Amino acid sequence: MAREVEVPETVVRRLPIYVRALAQLEAEGVKTISSLQLGRYIGVTAAQIRKDLSYFGEFGKQGRGYEVSHLLREIKRILGLTRVWPMVVVGAGRLGQAIASYDGFKPRGFEVVAVFDNDPAKVGQRVGSLVIRDVAELPDVVRTHGVQIGIVAVPASEAQKVADLIVAAGIRAVLNYAPTALHVPEGVRVEDVDPVAILQSMTYYLVNSGQRDPVTADLHGAATPAVESAPER
Amino acid sequence: MAREVEVPETVVRRLPIYVRALAQLEAEGVKTISSLQLGRYIGVTAAQIRKDLSYFGEFGKQGRGYEVSHLLREIKRILGLTRVWPMVVVGAGRLGQAIASYDGFKPRGFEVVAVFDNDPAKVGQRVGSLVIRDVAELPDVVRTHGVQIGIVAVPASEAQKVADLIVAAGIRAVLNYAPTALHVPEGVRVEDVDPVAILQSMTYYLVNSGQRDPVTADLHGAATPAVESAPER
Repeated sequence: MAREVEVPETVVRRLPIYVRALAQLEAEGVKTISSLQLGRYIGVTAAQIRKDLSYFGEFGKQGRGYEVSHLLREIKRILGLTRVWPMVVVGAGRLGQAIASYDGFKPRGFEVVAVFDNDPAKVGQRVGSLVIRDVAELPDVVRTHGVQIGIVAVPASEAQKVADLIVAAGIRAVLNYAPTALHVPEGVRVEDVDPVAILQSMTYYLVNSGQRDPVTADLHGAATPAVESAPER
Repeated sequence: MAREVEVPETVVRRLPIYVRALAQLEAEGVKTISSLQLGRYIGVTAAQIRKDLSYFGEFGKQGRGYEVSHLLREIKRILGLTRVWPMVVVGAGRLGQAIASYDGFKPRGFEVVAVFDNDPAKVGQRVGSLVIRDVAELPDVVRTHGVQIGIVAVPASEAQKVADLIVAAGIRAVLNYAPTALHVPEGVRVEDVDPVAILQSMTYYLVNSGQRDPVTADLHGAATPAVESAPER
């Protein structure tokens, strides 16, 4: 199912946002939408939407906009969301447990089928409907369930070891919650979830913004407690 | 502190990754690093690193690489990370509680100073060292602590209302965990944390990859259970 034209990664990353918006619109009973309206809803231009979708074919009728349900179904098909993807979570600390019991995966095409830890005190305990398993069982579980997606929820110091383990077991897509760069072989994808990195890019704009409302600056800027710099880990 | 040249957003988003890597290298005792080594560590090219940093001045000496501690300190200064940023969390469900008690904020420059909910059953309960407060108290807390950053951890259906509330209270940067697009006035930044959207872009590559190892495909692809498509929420 290789495509003729390589789709830019930025486009692939926007498609899930379209899916999210279209599903919301569908739930609200909206039948058709123009690229302008959809763009406003998501926060991109109409031209961007038309260009993004043009990589995959013709979805709208000139002057009539997009049929919401149809476009939603097509983008989900393009993203491989016509099935449920089983996932494993490694790390059953507070974060791993929150991920393993998160109820937002299933309605959007994903399911945590197992959660692992190497701490004997944790193995055997319940997390929602799952029982924490010994990480030694991981290769078997990955094989049995045909799992291709692994979630890393261990401390940064353990993360590369875990990545090596799950990739060796057959995992081909890694969602990494550890605040560290993971190295994986060619053909395996890693994406980081690092809210602090996002916050740190937002503070850039807070300190470098010229748009600051002087009243707000008075109220909040002046009131900001002077706290000394924190060392980065 | 407005800059002469507008720094591209993609560059600003990479700076925290540099901070993360440099902090790790510093902790490992590394004194100097070339752009090639730093690039390998992070997964970008040496040219990219040199170009990104060129927006902010001269950090390396020709042929001698970067001084790790110095570069780390400078990028932290650029990002406004020479202080601790107080934050409020709205929503004290499982996710909000996990965020409010996450111990990874403080070492990297952030601190949750209050967590709010509108559920009387939750208000007054403890989350780590914090007590869940009534959302009606939010404007006061934001003012008193000079808070500029708010974290939205409520269901999608409540998220816009919460965003309106916190922006009205003076919040200028919103980290949004609700899987929905938030609309905020000019001058306020919103960033989404939506792990499912990331997963959905990874499945694109899983289904459209030509690099699939045939052995892996036999073992894992064939074993993949055929599950029917899940509706998006």
